Amino acid sequence: MTIVVSAFGWVPEFAQGHVRDLRVRWALEEAGRPYAVEPVDGAMLHTPAYRGWQPFGQVPAYRDDAVELFESGAIVLHIAATAPELLPADPAGRARASAWMFAALNSVEPAVERLVMPEVFHAGEAWVAGARPHAERAVGERLAALDAALGDREWLEGRFTAGDLVMVTVLRSLMETEMLARHPRLDAYRLRGQARPAFARALAAQMADYRAHAPVAG
Amino acid sequence: MTIVVSAFGWVPEFAQGHVRDLRVRWALEEAGRPYAVEPVDGAMLHTPAYRGWQPFGQVPAYRDDAVELFESGAIVLHIAATAPELLPADPAGRARASAWMFAALNSVEPAVERLVMPEVFHAGEAWVAGARPHAERAVGERLAALDAALGDREWLEGRFTAGDLVMVTVLRSLMETEMLARHPRLDAYRLRGQARPAFARALAAQMADYRAHAPVAG
Repeated sequence: MTIVVSAFGWVPEFAQGHVRDLRVRWALEEAGRPYAVEPVDGAMLHTPAYRGWQPFGQVPAYRDDAVELFESGAIVLHIAATAPELLPADPAGRARASAWMFAALNSVEPAVERLVMPEVFHAGEAWVAGARPHAERAVGERLAALDAALGDREWLEGRFTAGDLVMVTVLRSLMETEMLARHPRLDAYRLRGQARPAFARALAAQMADYRAHAPVAG
Repeated sequence: MTIVVSAFGWVPEFAQGHVRDLRVRWALEEAGRPYAVEPVDGAMLHTPAYRGWQPFGQVPAYRDDAVELFESGAIVLHIAATAPELLPADPAGRARASAWMFAALNSVEPAVERLVMPEVFHAGEAWVAGARPHAERAVGERLAALDAALGDREWLEGRFTAGDLVMVTVLRSLMETEMLARHPRLDAYRLRGQARPAFARALAAQMADYRAHAPVAG
């Protein structure tokens, strides 16, 4: 099967290791599936051809012999559907793992982005400081709830699933804040995810692509 | 099969018809599955018993004979997995529908909430006015992309799927803004969703529960 994933050819250093194609690369590495990368840049995101593949002009988009997909969550779920490394075999276990995927993407990530993104894209604007306490409280509530749910288990459902994969990538967006330090158990969970060989291969591949496409210093 | 869904017994009028159990009720109505509602209030959301069912203390949570679930997206996907009314039979078609579910919940809803929620929960605070133009631009970009992707089709993948169901509930959060009026084709799509008999039954059931639990005027 030929698998193609779109990814930015290059992004500024602060974003390296955080773009969402990392999730898909990680899932493919866990499942042991080779893939090719189709590099895109900011201008290509707006072309009708790319929008036909990824309607919102984001990365990643995905293509295999059977289907074209967009949204990192949907792509990871599609890969996981035929990868026992990422989902248990029983329908109840699969549904539980998908609950953590949706939780990561709809209950945790939006709060994380409300905290992190204004500092990146609107640094110094007056409203950012006013919004920050609310964003911090929202993230803090989510992390406390996640910490309690994880408890002393290794993974959210006992064994590693696609739910952990997506959740760990979301938590990584908080790496450079103080938020995770308040939850050592949760930070250890994040580090456990990052210590998986498949994650290391995925991250190395993303970083190698950025090096290959790096703008030449003027 | 016994299906139980948690929902707020009552919410203030501005939130009525917008709480996320509506998605699950709608999916169950499309699938023709009866369900019971377990009413919860704000205090119960914080109890260990409820957190064991819904780790983040949100509604809805879901239980059937086989599994306990949380996250409206995961619950709708679980219902849809055995409901031909909500998902096509072929794996590629199912994956495409799930892409729209994830798009609704991870690419559209976070932008919508950044626009709508501050006006509800932080009205009058200085930062809200500063954040608003950025939130409006983000929502505008998502709506324009969705409008282009929908085109002149009735539903996002030609036939009604769980992806449309979730997307329509997200668009409904913009009903009281000016944003949808700029995209008449998209607003017609939202109204098409709301015109489905299953949606009407789901909304009527949610509203009837609120009436039954309404606080007695002092």
